[in-house]
Amino acid sequence: MSNEASAAMKRFSQYVQSPEWFCDFRYFDVTGIGAEEGVHRRDPSSVINVGGVYHVWYTKSTGVAQGFAAGDDAKVFPWDFSEVWHATSTDGHAWVEADRALGAGEPGNYDDRSVFTPEILHHEGRFYLVYQVVASPYRLRSKESIAIAWADDPAGPWTRSPEPILRPAEGGEWEGDEDNHLRVVRPGPFDSLKVHDPLLLPLRGRFYLYYKGEQMAEKFTGGGRATRWGVAIADSPTGPYVRSPLNPVTNSGHETCLWLHDGGVAALLTTDGPERNTLQFAADGVNFEIQAHLASPPEAPGPFRQEEPTRRGLDGLRWGLCHDVSGPWHYIRGFAADERRKHLYATGNPPELADLTSLPPGMPWEGAGAR
Amino acid sequence: MSNEASAAMKRFSQYVQSPEWFCDFRYFDVTGIGAEEGVHRRDPSSVINVGGVYHVWYTKSTGVAQGFAAGDDAKVFPWDFSEVWHATSTDGHAWVEADRALGAGEPGNYDDRSVFTPEILHHEGRFYLVYQVVASPYRLRSKESIAIAWADDPAGPWTRSPEPILRPAEGGEWEGDEDNHLRVVRPGPFDSLKVHDPLLLPLRGRFYLYYKGEQMAEKFTGGGRATRWGVAIADSPTGPYVRSPLNPVTNSGHETCLWLHDGGVAALLTTDGPERNTLQFAADGVNFEIQAHLASPPEAPGPFRQEEPTRRGLDGLRWGLCHDVSGPWHYIRGFAADERRKHLYATGNPPELADLTSLPPGMPWEGAGAR
Repeated sequence: MSNEASAAMKRFSQYVQSPEWFCDFRYFDVTGIGAEEGVHRRDPSSVINVGGVYHVWYTKSTGVAQGFAAGDDAKVFPWDFSEVWHATSTDGHAWVEADRALGAGEPGNYDDRSVFTPEILHHEGRFYLVYQVVASPYRLRSKESIAIAWADDPAGPWTRSPEPILRPAEGGEWEGDEDNHLRVVRPGPFDSLKVHDPLLLPLRGRFYLYYKGEQMAEKFTGGGRATRWGVAIADSPTGPYVRSPLNPVTNSGHETCLWLHDGGVAALLTTDGPERNTLQFAADGVNFEIQAHLASPPEAPGPFRQEEPTRRGLDGLRWGLCHDVSGPWHYIRGFAADERRKHLYATGNPPELADLTSLPPGMPWEGAGAR
Repeated sequence: MSNEASAAMKRFSQYVQSPEWFCDFRYFDVTGIGAEEGVHRRDPSSVINVGGVYHVWYTKSTGVAQGFAAGDDAKVFPWDFSEVWHATSTDGHAWVEADRALGAGEPGNYDDRSVFTPEILHHEGRFYLVYQVVASPYRLRSKESIAIAWADDPAGPWTRSPEPILRPAEGGEWEGDEDNHLRVVRPGPFDSLKVHDPLLLPLRGRFYLYYKGEQMAEKFTGGGRATRWGVAIADSPTGPYVRSPLNPVTNSGHETCLWLHDGGVAALLTTDGPERNTLQFAADGVNFEIQAHLASPPEAPGPFRQEEPTRRGLDGLRWGLCHDVSGPWHYIRGFAADERRKHLYATGNPPELADLTSLPPGMPWEGAGAR
């Protein structure tokens, strides 16, 4: 009997033993796009550096969300009646809200209600924003799509795609006419209702558009909401995009967070599903394997994106912006990976935090906003 | 190719699909044992009801922890120089700190430095406190043990065991004489340095003493700290206790949280390891299987313990006390399981929170302290 192992220890062999990808997180307040009464700022993109200046794009809206019962003109979610805004910073901490990158489209257009959850790709001198769109009226059964806009400068002007570059998958069928997104004859694929939170990466000469799928009659499981990520692939940034036949490529995760790493793609999954709060890696960009199980990672993270693919552990997740949606007004704050415990266990000596990060100089670790 | 699944979806089949054990959590402030400048209150026991009055025991200390470099008389942790205190309540919200159940032992005794992390068992008319002890001086290499005390009334007086009922396992050997707990010739078993956070349950006519083990030269993994739980079993509450040959019985988890459920034992694991934030069940009390993956469960939870073993889903985790250690002074607050999202997905209609809980009347869900 002493040669046997408990059920838990039999499972343990499947978990990654090396702490290379493990980290804790610290959070800090930012100025300019931080907490503000009456305004929602959320869903920051990855942070990029262009000529020594940091840039971020994010969802911005005003006013209280009232839900779906308040009529067609009421704001239903904090991301309803939203726009995509752009802010800049020289230190990652003090941000200036610079300009509105994209407002809602003209009445009748595919994006006439709200544009939100932007991500950025700076590729061969051009800037690409991928983002989510919804048309009026906003109902529980509204399908949500992904669009793209491009510009030669981070401040725009932005040219929008004439149509969405990815729409929800076909194959589902609603039951009845009531606006109830949980009643179906057939649910269709994992992304039959909404394609959300796009993120675009250039990989192996092609363009990988990652997104979160929501299904008609979404299920609720032992891991909570059954949101999953898919990927659609194109030869050009503007498409046409074709879904991977291996979709979905995750079984968990809410807002997408991915970066190029060591010839493949690294991902941080949070919020939903049995593999929430894991770091994963896919050498082929499609078949993701768990690298670490994290405690309290940032929500809707937009890490600072290195110019070149990262090669080592957590270099793609050193610091960035995320959002806090625990209060009535959503706001953006900063996060940074903290590897002090890992180094303490490895060496017996806790290093200075500054030695473990690639933070911009002056990041206020010990200031009033850091915790 | 379209018949294949991604690596993530191949893993998905191993996860529990039923949301029966899934829940969100809400937190509320309590009075009497809540936040107080200068005082640490932490590690609440399970809450029990005796004749219509709720009882809880917890770790209490005063003063700022200074670490191991400040000398033998300095307080090294918030749980150093601690005592076990007892509070009562008629509504689960307003608590009265009633009495000190146990102080540190006489100088030279096994418990002369600190007594902490109590748990309660009310069994056949008698009350048993199991708790952690450490002797002076408190060093990094100090071994920590588990003791028991008993009384015929929740207010005491308490009779202590003459010796600890469980000591760290033999088999490890330190390297050198420096007070460094990470340097060993041999680390020994998973619980060779400390046995922590005891919790006692009567099961199948015997007594199961669960505890968290810490190892000499503890490892740090892809899931963070390598803490695990063990169990030792006896024919009488006061021992002698013999470790299960299947130890450790978890591969993760910090403070223990377990309750009798459906002929076996249910557990909530948090904070450390790849299976942090899971609910698990072991029909035999030893071989635990994952039932749900939770977001943001309570830390160091002490749920309200039903008189009889629970039979249904989350009945053992409806509400209770936990601690918040994010600020300089640790304090106790309340938690309750929130199954509204699960019911919304199951039925299309969100129920009232009050319909989903077994909270005492008057629990201030919507009050200032609830969030």
